[in-house]
Amino acid sequence: MKIEPVSRFSMSLPPALLRQLDAMSGERGYDNRSQAIADMIRDRLVEHRQKFGNDEICGTITLVYDHHKPHLQATLTDIQHDHHDIILSTVHVHLDHHNCLEVLLVRGKAAEIKKIADELISAKGVKHGKLTVTTTGKNLPF
Amino acid sequence: MKIEPVSRFSMSLPPALLRQLDAMSGERGYDNRSQAIADMIRDRLVEHRQKFGNDEICGTITLVYDHHKPHLQATLTDIQHDHHDIILSTVHVHLDHHNCLEVLLVRGKAAEIKKIADELISAKGVKHGKLTVTTTGKNLPF
Amino acid sequence: MKIEPVSRFSMSLPPALLRQLDAMSGERGYDNRSQAIADMIRDRLVEHRQKFGNDEICGTITLVYDHHKPHLQATLTDIQHDHHDIILSTVHVHLDHHNCLEVLLVRGKAAEIKKIADELISAKGVKHGKLTVTTTGKNLPF
Amino acid sequence: MKIEPVSRFSMSLPPALLRQLDAMSGERGYDNRSQAIADMIRDRLVEHRQKFGNDEICGTITLVYDHHKPHLQATLTDIQHDHHDIILSTVHVHLDHHNCLEVLLVRGKAAEIKKIADELISAKGVKHGKLTVTTTGKNLPF
Repeated sequence: MKIEPVSRFSMSLPPALLRQLDAMSGERGYDNRSQAIADMIRDRLVEHRQKFGNDEICGTITLVYDHHKPHLQATLTDIQHDHHDIILSTVHVHLDHHNCLEVLLVRGKAAEIKKIADELISAKGVKHGKLTVTTTGKNLPF
Repeated sequence: MKIEPVSRFSMSLPPALLRQLDAMSGERGYDNRSQAIADMIRDRLVEHRQKFGNDEICGTITLVYDHHKPHLQATLTDIQHDHHDIILSTVHVHLDHHNCLEVLLVRGKAAEIKKIADELISAKGVKHGKLTVTTTGKNLPF
Repeated sequence: MKIEPVSRFSMSLPPALLRQLDAMSGERGYDNRSQAIADMIRDRLVEHRQKFGNDEICGTITLVYDHHKPHLQATLTDIQHDHHDIILSTVHVHLDHHNCLEVLLVRGKAAEIKKIADELISAKGVKHGKLTVTTTGKNLPF
Repeated sequence: MKIEPVSRFSMSLPPALLRQLDAMSGERGYDNRSQAIADMIRDRLVEHRQKFGNDEICGTITLVYDHHKPHLQATLTDIQHDHHDIILSTVHVHLDHHNCLEVLLVRGKAAEIKKIADELISAKGVKHGKLTVTTTGKNLPF
């Protein structure tokens, strides 16, 4: 088995914060404190990088809407087709007779993805929409 | 002037991740590494303490991981099968030879979904994970 | 020699489709158009008469269509919502500016799934549709 | 509204076949005989073209398997990552504690897609697998 190199360093935290960190890490299922902190750093890096509009990111756009609203579904589909190079696929779950959960998997430049998300989420009839940004996995050390 | 007590401890990170942390901390204006990490921990605590009760919600759990990490995919699949009543479906995109984007569509009690998300995101080898909460559309007027 | 009785009738097709039919019929060695169409009808009858009973099956319904066809997407969504207990999820890929690939994952009684598939595939504007039947994995030894 | 041009022609069928065609068309929900026959022709064109290995097609590969079979999931994922340019996305449904339904949406050259499907379906532990071929929607008149 390959041994992964690690860098060791020491740091300091207010004692109460350290206790709460350890409690939370246990509750969330982390094996140790370093692993929990490493995950937070990666999360913050993903968030930090999306500010640079030309970086390639992955993400999801989650929409809940009533498909009976006039023109809504056609509007959402039209927007999506205009960006079919960025939208990897869309999963649609029929929650009940009225409500739809639609999740778009996207990959592209951060700025473009934000623009598409805004267009979709602001469409009249969308009850709730959310852009979730993640990484392509490249340049994110583990 | 009152001296604030601090707890010192040492931890380890992959060297590339440590470099990226320091670069980001500089760009964001932090004076030192401990302070940057302390802020991330506080942010994560706020998020962790959000109330997840017995209300029915919909959501997505987004994961990016390297499927070559030993046992990782089996672990993720085992966790998912233990909750097959909550996970509506999982979409998997093969981003490149190593990296996978996996998006789970979930529906169930908020507290249970939070627990599944924590288990998956904390699994060793997951580069980035995110729980996104949305609605079933019921009782949300438009 | 016995003369077989025939029924003559006239029908209409998009001109490009008629040209492609004639080209294919030639390539496949048919003497005339009527004979080629008769073979397709017999093939479809065999498929249509397969028994679809009350056994629980899994399957997919695959549709390719142009989302610009008036009312088509609304019709397809309405049919799907009437059966939201059977349709696990629907994945939609935006192939180009016009064409959509939509794949429904279904689970339920074979006869009901066949009925939904027929409704969707026969909707005016669907270019190609296909029901694929598989198993729930239960009672299928390996 | 745009009037679509049509080509009219007459054809002949054995009387019993014509009756059975009309009965089936009604049962399947077609508005008229021409539309039902047009759908059969498109279906046959899709099937005919997949014989030409270099034509671009779309399709699905449907797999049912027990994810507890040793090495099976890793094998299936490895095969898929070797072809991540062809596999648009993979949807995974956790049917029960053991059984998985996995549906791959694919787009590429017919010959390559058949090869991937054969590799996946023949993997030891796959209970049932099926390749379903459809069209990119291009060059298929409606």
